[in-house]
Amino acid sequence: MSKKPLALVDPAPRTLDLIFSQEDLVRLESMVDTVVWKEGRMPDEEVEKHLGEATFLIGQTDLPRGRLERASRLKAVINVEGNFQPNVDYEHCFQRGIHVLGTGVVFGQAVAEMALGMALDLARGISEHDRLFRNGLETYGRPSNVGSFLLAGAEVGLIGFGNIGRALLPLLAPFGGRVRVYDPWLPERYLESCGLIPGSLEEVLGSSRVVFVLAGVTEENQGMLSAKSLGLMQDGACLVLISRAALADFDGLTEVLGKGSIRAAIDVFPEEPFTADHPLRRLDNVILSAHRAGSLMPVYKLMGEMVADDIGQMLRGLPPVRLQRAERETVSRMRSKPVEKS
Amino acid sequence: MSKKPLALVDPAPRTLDLIFSQEDLVRLESMVDTVVWKEGRMPDEEVEKHLGEATFLIGQTDLPRGRLERASRLKAVINVEGNFQPNVDYEHCFQRGIHVLGTGVVFGQAVAEMALGMALDLARGISEHDRLFRNGLETYGRPSNVGSFLLAGAEVGLIGFGNIGRALLPLLAPFGGRVRVYDPWLPERYLESCGLIPGSLEEVLGSSRVVFVLAGVTEENQGMLSAKSLGLMQDGACLVLISRAALADFDGLTEVLGKGSIRAAIDVFPEEPFTADHPLRRLDNVILSAHRAGSLMPVYKLMGEMVADDIGQMLRGLPPVRLQRAERETVSRMRSKPVEKS
Amino acid sequence: MSKKPLALVDPAPRTLDLIFSQEDLVRLESMVDTVVWKEGRMPDEEVEKHLGEATFLIGQTDLPRGRLERASRLKAVINVEGNFQPNVDYEHCFQRGIHVLGTGVVFGQAVAEMALGMALDLARGISEHDRLFRNGLETYGRPSNVGSFLLAGAEVGLIGFGNIGRALLPLLAPFGGRVRVYDPWLPERYLESCGLIPGSLEEVLGSSRVVFVLAGVTEENQGMLSAKSLGLMQDGACLVLISRAALADFDGLTEVLGKGSIRAAIDVFPEEPFTADHPLRRLDNVILSAHRAGSLMPVYKLMGEMVADDIGQMLRGLPPVRLQRAERETVSRMRSKPVEKS
Amino acid sequence: MSKKPLALVDPAPRTLDLIFSQEDLVRLESMVDTVVWKEGRMPDEEVEKHLGEATFLIGQTDLPRGRLERASRLKAVINVEGNFQPNVDYEHCFQRGIHVLGTGVVFGQAVAEMALGMALDLARGISEHDRLFRNGLETYGRPSNVGSFLLAGAEVGLIGFGNIGRALLPLLAPFGGRVRVYDPWLPERYLESCGLIPGSLEEVLGSSRVVFVLAGVTEENQGMLSAKSLGLMQDGACLVLISRAALADFDGLTEVLGKGSIRAAIDVFPEEPFTADHPLRRLDNVILSAHRAGSLMPVYKLMGEMVADDIGQMLRGLPPVRLQRAERETVSRMRSKPVEKS
Repeated sequence: MSKKPLALVDPAPRTLDLIFSQEDLVRLESMVDTVVWKEGRMPDEEVEKHLGEATFLIGQTDLPRGRLERASRLKAVINVEGNFQPNVDYEHCFQRGIHVLGTGVVFGQAVAEMALGMALDLARGISEHDRLFRNGLETYGRPSNVGSFLLAGAEVGLIGFGNIGRALLPLLAPFGGRVRVYDPWLPERYLESCGLIPGSLEEVLGSSRVVFVLAGVTEENQGMLSAKSLGLMQDGACLVLISRAALADFDGLTEVLGKGSIRAAIDVFPEEPFTADHPLRRLDNVILSAHRAGSLMPVYKLMGEMVADDIGQMLRGLPPVRLQRAERETVSRMRSKPVEKS
Repeated sequence: MSKKPLALVDPAPRTLDLIFSQEDLVRLESMVDTVVWKEGRMPDEEVEKHLGEATFLIGQTDLPRGRLERASRLKAVINVEGNFQPNVDYEHCFQRGIHVLGTGVVFGQAVAEMALGMALDLARGISEHDRLFRNGLETYGRPSNVGSFLLAGAEVGLIGFGNIGRALLPLLAPFGGRVRVYDPWLPERYLESCGLIPGSLEEVLGSSRVVFVLAGVTEENQGMLSAKSLGLMQDGACLVLISRAALADFDGLTEVLGKGSIRAAIDVFPEEPFTADHPLRRLDNVILSAHRAGSLMPVYKLMGEMVADDIGQMLRGLPPVRLQRAERETVSRMRSKPVEKS
Repeated sequence: MSKKPLALVDPAPRTLDLIFSQEDLVRLESMVDTVVWKEGRMPDEEVEKHLGEATFLIGQTDLPRGRLERASRLKAVINVEGNFQPNVDYEHCFQRGIHVLGTGVVFGQAVAEMALGMALDLARGISEHDRLFRNGLETYGRPSNVGSFLLAGAEVGLIGFGNIGRALLPLLAPFGGRVRVYDPWLPERYLESCGLIPGSLEEVLGSSRVVFVLAGVTEENQGMLSAKSLGLMQDGACLVLISRAALADFDGLTEVLGKGSIRAAIDVFPEEPFTADHPLRRLDNVILSAHRAGSLMPVYKLMGEMVADDIGQMLRGLPPVRLQRAERETVSRMRSKPVEKS
Repeated sequence: MSKKPLALVDPAPRTLDLIFSQEDLVRLESMVDTVVWKEGRMPDEEVEKHLGEATFLIGQTDLPRGRLERASRLKAVINVEGNFQPNVDYEHCFQRGIHVLGTGVVFGQAVAEMALGMALDLARGISEHDRLFRNGLETYGRPSNVGSFLLAGAEVGLIGFGNIGRALLPLLAPFGGRVRVYDPWLPERYLESCGLIPGSLEEVLGSSRVVFVLAGVTEENQGMLSAKSLGLMQDGACLVLISRAALADFDGLTEVLGKGSIRAAIDVFPEEPFTADHPLRRLDNVILSAHRAGSLMPVYKLMGEMVADDIGQMLRGLPPVRLQRAERETVSRMRSKPVEKS
C-alpha cells in the first residue's frame, strides 16, 4: 500500500474548516495524509514528531533553522494567515528550494470591492445621508448634493500596487479616470505598462480626487500618511484607508479629518478594538468599518482552493501558480502585524 | 445685419444658469438669440409674443395644438426637466417634423454610480456597520460579515433597460456575473445582443442576488414590486430602488423588508418628503437616500452641453444626436411625475 | 377569424430566404401575412394591388407620394438593401409617422472585424509575406520585419463614426492607442464622450499610424481622399478603405500608393469588377478585397432577425429598436450607390 | 571613487544594440559597469577573467557548476534569447539565490497581435482572396464568402496558456466567444478564475472554430498535433500555429490540410528555411509566415527596458518584477530549440 505524502496542518488563527470547502478538503485528502491541529498552535512536541515526514506545512508554525534542517522532505511552507512573520528561517528555505507560499492574494477582490463601495459612498454621501434620513433630517435632491461628485473621469490615486491594486484596477477601468500610483518597490515603466501614471507620494495625494491606500507596511512607510502629507490633498478629496493602519499617523489623520476639508473611509485601526471614545467616531466626513474588508467566507474558502491546487501542482513536479511566493529580498522587510484571530 | 434664430427658454423648475456652464452658455448665445424666463413658468403673454419667431423652445411650456400652429418656425421642443408631460401636442410635433427632445439621458451615469455604490453597501453592510461603529457597537472582522457577499460572480437583475441600465452595464462588467433583464418594451434578441439574459419579472426577482430597479413608470408597471413579487427574492438578496417610487407598492415593500430576509436601498419615495415616522426609517436592512442619485451639479451642466450640441446640429441641417427623442408610440404612456423643483 | 396585418415583401436584390433564417421566418409569419416577390422587383401592378392593405413594406419598392397616399395603413417602410435611395418620398413618410427603417446596422461587426484583420495584416505584412513564402522567397525572422509595427499603443484614426466605427471601437480598445475621429456630422463633445479625440481630416490623416475609412458617401465628402490629403499620411502608415469607394479619388490613391510610402487595404472600388489591368493589382503594399467585408451569411440573417423584432415591436404599439431610422435631415444627402446584387 | 557593480554582457545571438534603446543603455550604464562581447559568444578566457567580479550576467554564456562557484558575487543570470537552455547549472543558481531570469515575456503582445491577425485572415480569406484579386480572378461580395465566419461569438481554443495566451486573451475579449484552454501545467480552477474553460486537447480541438497553438515545447507535447488529433477539428475550423513547430507532426499537419477541411496559419517550421518544394507552400487554405510573429524591433527594445528595470530593482534590494524567472521544476523540461540568429 503506497503511502501518501504528509501535510502538517497548523492553521491557527484560522481553522482547516474555515479555509477549506468540503469539496477542496476531499481533494486535499486525496493527495496527502494530514496531521491537523484544531485549537491554537500545534505544540512543539507534535511538530517535532511529524516534521521529519512532512512534505508540506500548512500554517504559521515556528520554523527556525534547526527545525527546518530536521524537515528533510519539506517541499513547501504555506502561510494561511496572510502575512509572512519573522518566525521562519526564510533564507534556509530559499537555499533548500522549499517554496514559501502565502495566501494573501485571496483578499484582493474582496478588499477591492469594499474599497470601491467606500469610494462611491464618500463621493455621494450614501451613509452620511442615510443617517440624516433615519433622524428625519434628510434634504431632497440637489441641495443635498453640494459636495457630491462623479467617479467617472475623476483622478484616482493608489498608494501601493499589489494584490488589492491589481484587483481594483479593472473595477476602476469603466470610470475612465487617470490612475496615479505611488509604489517605490516597482519600476516606473512597469507601472506605465499597466496603464498607470507613476508618481511620488506627494503627487498622488495632491492630484487625486480619491486616494486608495493599498500598501503593506514596511520599515520605510510606517506613518507616512501624516498631517503634513494629508494636508496636500485637495478640498473634498477622499481617502480610503483599507490595507494597514500603520501607514497612517492616526493623530495626524484625525487632525486633518477634523478640519473637514477631506473625507475618509477607514477599515483598519492602530489597535482593534479602536479607542472607545475616539473623536473619529463622531465625524460626519468619515466612514468607519471594523476590519471588515477582507474577512468574508468566500475569501477564506478561496485559500483552501488555492492550497489544494498548488499542492497538486507540486506533487506533479510543477511549480505552484496560485499562491504567492515570499521574496528573498522583501520577506524580512514586511512589518504587518499578525492577525490575532481570523 | 443677419439675425440669429430665436430660442425661447422657459426652463422652470430648472434655471438657465443651473443647466448651462458659462462656456456652453456662450456657445448657445453664439448660435441663437434667447428670450429667457428666469423665475417660474413663462407667462402665456410672453410665450405668445415670441412664439411666431421661435426656432427652438427650451423648457416645459404648455404647447397645445393651437399654440404649436402659431409657432411656424419651430424646429425643436427641448424638455430640460427629464420627463415628457402631457402638456404638449406631441402628435402635431411629429407630423410637422418638430423634434421633441429630452435630457433624461444626462442622469444615466450619476444614477448608475449611485446604484453600484448602494449595491456594494448592501452586499457588505457599509452604512449599517458604520452606524454600529459610531455607537461603539462594532464587531471586528469575520463575525461582522455573516451576510456579506462578493459582487464578483453574483447574479444580477435589472428591471428596465434604458439610460440607467446602459450606464450601469459597463460598471458591472468587471464583476463578471450574469445579468438578467426584465424589460417588456425591448425584444429578447436585442437584450441578448447586449450580452444580457432576458427574463420575466418573476425570473429576475427570483434568481438575482442584486436587483436594480431602473424602469420609468408606465400605465402597466405601477406597483408591480408588491409584497407578492418581492417575496420571490432570495434570502439575503438586495433591491436597489432608484428610478421611480411608483414601481413599488410601498406598503408591500415595507412589509417584506420588515421581515428582514432581503435588503434594500431606496432613493425614491411615493411622496417627498417621505412620511416622518415611517417604519422604513428604522430598519437596519435598508439604506435611505432622499432622491439624491441624479441631482448632481455636473449632471445638470451636461444638459446644457447636450442642448447646445444639438442646437448646433440642427442649425447645420443635421439631426440631433445627444438628446433623446420622444417616441410617438410611448410618449403618451409614460406616467412619471414631473419634478417640482430641480 | 381575425386577419393578420399584411407585409409586402419586395426585397430585391436580396431574397426573403437570404435574409431570414427559418426560425425568424416562422416568427415573421406568425405576426403578419406576407405577399412576397421572389425574382427581381415587384411589378407595379402587384404593388398597387396590395398597397391599400399593407401595414409593412419590406424592400426597396418605389414609393412616390401618390403611391404612399394610397397606402393608408402603412406603419413602416423597411429597406433591406443597406442604403436609402431617392425612390421614396421620405418627407411624406415622416409627416405621416410612417417609420423609415434600414438594415445597414447589421454590417457593423462584420466590416469592423475585416477592418481589424486588414490593419493587422498591413502592420505585419501577413499577406505580402505569405506571397513571398509561396514563391520560395521568404525571409526568416527579424530581417523580414523592417516595416512591421505593433497595434498596441499605435495612434489610430477613423474617418466617419457610424455603425462600423461603433463596432470597431471595442475591438480596438485592448490595443490601448489613442483614437482620433473626423466626422463632421457629429459634435466634438459627443465624440469626446465616446473616448475619442475629434480632429479635422488633415489631423486624422497626419497623426495616425492606421486610418480606417468608415464613412458613408455624402455630397460633401466624395473624393476627399486625394493625392493631396493622402500625402499627409506618415511614412509607413496604413489606410483601410472599407466603407465606400467614392470617398477616394482612385487616381490619387493609386499615385500615392505607387510611391510606396504608405500601405493600404481596399475593399471597395469605383466600379466592380475593378479594371482588369489596374496598377493597384500589382502593388506589394496593397491588400485587395472584392467588396467582401460585409456580405457574410450570418450578417444577412441578422437582417431578418431585426426586421422580425421591430415588426413585433410596432405591432405591440412600441417603437422599433433594432433597425436604424432614416433621418429627415440626412436621408436625402446620402449618395451611396445601390447594391446591384446581394 | 566608488566602483559600480559589473555586468558581463554576452548576448549572442542578440547584440546589445539590438536589445537596448539608447535611453535604456544610458540607464543601464548609470547603474553598472559593463564588459560587452560584440560578435559571437564571449570566449571562455574573457568570461573567466571577469567572472569573479560580475554581479550580473546578461546572455547565454555556459555556466556549469565550477564556473558558477567562481562567480561569487553573481546576483542574476539574464537570458536574452528567449529560451532556457541546458548549458547552465540552474540548481546551483537556485541554491545560491541567484536569479535566473528570461526575456520570453517580451514576445507576448507581438505574437498575440499576429495570431489575431492570422485568425481574422483565415476566418475571412483575406490573403487568399488578395491573391485571387492580383490574378484577376476575384469574385465580388457574397459568393466569395462561402466559408467566411465572424469571430464574434465563435468558440476559441488555446493550446497552452503562457505569455502569449495572457496577451491574446484581452484581444479576444471583445469578440465575446467562449475560450477553452488545454494546458496540463495549470490547475483547472486557475484557468476558470481567468474566465477560461479548461479542457483536454481533444475537447479544445473538437469544439473550437479557431485554435491557437501557443505552448512551449516539453518532453511530453512534441508532435501532439498529429493527423489523428487534428482530425478532430470541425469542418472549416482554423489552426494558428505560432509558438513552436515541434508541437506539430508536420507530415500529419500537411496531410490534414491537404484534404482542405480545415485552414491553418503557420509561423514556425521544423527546419528554417522550410523545405523548398514542400506541398504546404501550394495550399490555398494555408497562410505561411517565416517565423515573423515575435521578431519586431519594438519587441527587442522591450528586452533592454525590462533588463534595466530589473537590474535597478536588484541593486535597490528589491525582487525583479518584469523578467520571467526560471522555475526549478520546469526549467529542465523545456525543449525549445535555441534561436540561431536574432
